[in-house]
Amino acid sequence: MGPGRLHALIDGIFAIAITLLVLDLPKPAASAHITTDLLHQWPSYAAYLVSFVTLGIVWIEHHGMMSAARHINRRFLERNLAFLLVVSVMPWPTSLAATYARRGAQATPTAVLYGATMLCMGLAFAWSWRYLRDHPELVVAAAPASAFEAGFRRALLGSVAYLVAIGVAFGSAMGSYAIDAAVAIYFAASSSAVPGLVAASSSDAE
Amino acid sequence: MGPGRLHALIDGIFAIAITLLVLDLPKPAASAHITTDLLHQWPSYAAYLVSFVTLGIVWIEHHGMMSAARHINRRFLERNLAFLLVVSVMPWPTSLAATYARRGAQATPTAVLYGATMLCMGLAFAWSWRYLRDHPELVVAAAPASAFEAGFRRALLGSVAYLVAIGVAFGSAMGSYAIDAAVAIYFAASSSAVPGLVAASSSDAE
Amino acid sequence: MGPGRLHALIDGIFAIAITLLVLDLPKPAASAHITTDLLHQWPSYAAYLVSFVTLGIVWIEHHGMMSAARHINRRFLERNLAFLLVVSVMPWPTSLAATYARRGAQATPTAVLYGATMLCMGLAFAWSWRYLRDHPELVVAAAPASAFEAGFRRALLGSVAYLVAIGVAFGSAMGSYAIDAAVAIYFAASSSAVPGLVAASSSDAE
Amino acid sequence: MGPGRLHALIDGIFAIAITLLVLDLPKPAASAHITTDLLHQWPSYAAYLVSFVTLGIVWIEHHGMMSAARHINRRFLERNLAFLLVVSVMPWPTSLAATYARRGAQATPTAVLYGATMLCMGLAFAWSWRYLRDHPELVVAAAPASAFEAGFRRALLGSVAYLVAIGVAFGSAMGSYAIDAAVAIYFAASSSAVPGLVAASSSDAE
Repeated sequence: MGPGRLHALIDGIFAIAITLLVLDLPKPAASAHITTDLLHQWPSYAAYLVSFVTLGIVWIEHHGMMSAARHINRRFLERNLAFLLVVSVMPWPTSLAATYARRGAQATPTAVLYGATMLCMGLAFAWSWRYLRDHPELVVAAAPASAFEAGFRRALLGSVAYLVAIGVAFGSAMGSYAIDAAVAIYFAASSSAVPGLVAASSSDAE
Repeated sequence: MGPGRLHALIDGIFAIAITLLVLDLPKPAASAHITTDLLHQWPSYAAYLVSFVTLGIVWIEHHGMMSAARHINRRFLERNLAFLLVVSVMPWPTSLAATYARRGAQATPTAVLYGATMLCMGLAFAWSWRYLRDHPELVVAAAPASAFEAGFRRALLGSVAYLVAIGVAFGSAMGSYAIDAAVAIYFAASSSAVPGLVAASSSDAE
Repeated sequence: MGPGRLHALIDGIFAIAITLLVLDLPKPAASAHITTDLLHQWPSYAAYLVSFVTLGIVWIEHHGMMSAARHINRRFLERNLAFLLVVSVMPWPTSLAATYARRGAQATPTAVLYGATMLCMGLAFAWSWRYLRDHPELVVAAAPASAFEAGFRRALLGSVAYLVAIGVAFGSAMGSYAIDAAVAIYFAASSSAVPGLVAASSSDAE
Repeated sequence: MGPGRLHALIDGIFAIAITLLVLDLPKPAASAHITTDLLHQWPSYAAYLVSFVTLGIVWIEHHGMMSAARHINRRFLERNLAFLLVVSVMPWPTSLAATYARRGAQATPTAVLYGATMLCMGLAFAWSWRYLRDHPELVVAAAPASAFEAGFRRALLGSVAYLVAIGVAFGSAMGSYAIDAAVAIYFAASSSAVPGLVAASSSDAE
């Protein structure tokens, strides 16, 4: 099977997961101090931003991976569905994180849940990268073999950072979220072999 | 009409139905024991998982069928819309199943509704397979004729399993859901002529 | 501009409008008689079905029209956005129709609103057909000129039927909905020059 | 990377943001005067219309820009994600604007928020235009270089209008919304080098 329609499902699920995040932004029904009430809910905006940026960056990186896939078999498809399962579930931990970020003892489990979802996303992504690395018959000729190992390590690096965020949550939920945010910023700013892979395969696709 | 735009509608509806499932995951507004409260709602996660995996597998199989369709006429389109009607409605029985799974006598009708929705999805899918089997002028040359009969039987097999799940629901709702889950796992793990069809038509599409 | 990306927006909006309908199906939170409570809400299912089938049929017919469009200019784009405005708003009158169908005097205005939305959809669709009829430089060579006049009349015919449904609503809301449903069934069953247009332009696209 | 898949994400997010607007239209649960109650909520419809038309027009203009992009690099992708962040968040200020438009002192901050979101959308759009203007290696040969400067100025012009709307909100929220609406109408009606760019690159794509 060619990769075209899997792209459509991936893009659809990312677009919807990203857009559903907005449903959890605060909409007080009858506030008498709307500015204060909205500002007071700043964890909602922070959670929205971190989840949006994380999903956006992950979409770019996943996009890079998929642009190197020439064929898709059923096993690779199932790995991708596992990854999409985590992507589509993101609005849920995001909402809980925003609601409980400042509620004392309840902040820790929700920060753990948020970090754990991110961790699952990283691991599922790494799982897909490794499959492509180990199945060169599925990839385009122009993609350098080293890129798949690099992508795999990059996804694992993110996973390790989320593991640290989970650990930190037991001390400080806000510290844990700060790590989640830092990961998003790091991946947005850093360059790696993965964007290079994108460039390589895009010239290939022309 | 070429199949391209039907693909877009199908992928869109699958992506949205899959993603809307997340809106029904529990979000207690002001819990004092968030871990317990979230764990207590485990049927929601189980229902989410079973529906997600079922929709994912059905998308893969439907994808296999569509990749063998070269032309689409209005009758085939209407069969596909009947199928998409059931796909798009999935978040509704999923939500009811999760809410009532442990509520005594109310668990049976919701398990029946869940199984009946799955059954309708299987039958509508089989209906499309049969149409392609009986209209070889709509399919790509590379697709082996036996694949359509195999796909038809595979969809019927799932339907029979869901019929059993509906019957079991009158004895045990949990037993019924276990069958629904087993069907998803079986179809994820099993190989058949259908993925073979996918491979055949993908080489054809190159 | 080529029609490809407009297709993507159209398919996306149809897919989402169709799928959002499901959010208004009844989900009683703590029912002690779930079967009775669900059956009692039959207007919700009827409204869901009529809206789904109407949107599905309209998507097919619109698809037929778009498959004959070779170029898209800004004026045609704006006519399509007017049409998509009505498509995307459909879940709203559907929800109100289901809620108020059996609430005495409140049933009439909601049936009028439902019919009026359908009427606007028909008129916006007719408006697009007429534009293509009057701008042959935008259409593919294989499309017979008569098909655009036929499509225009078909969209107007639906509009007239919805006008009747609006009038009938002042006597009987249920009678009005019956007409809305009948229109959907009529367009699903009837054949016309429009599906022929689709076939013509699909062979053209090969 | 070719622009195809970015198109899919953009179209998906626009389609969903446009369609989610409908979730905030008023659905009174048990009204005894449904016509009056619905008419009373006219700011909801006005806000829906202004946001829909604005997003529709912005989609057309953005479409024009993207049709001139031959290659996409990571920096351009990130500018687009910033733009999509604002697009996807639109249902939130729209909902608040509708709720508080007539609530005395609370109307000003929500009108400011609405205008500020529009302003961010304009600036993010201008930021993308400028990037293409400054990186001719990313654009198709047929696109006239002046079009990018024109698009950049057009996006800045909208931004300035929204800045005025924000200022006016401190005097009159309704006056502020009137400016937001006027911007949408102006961009729908006006012609510029940008639609010309679209035409130019569409003939190029043939």
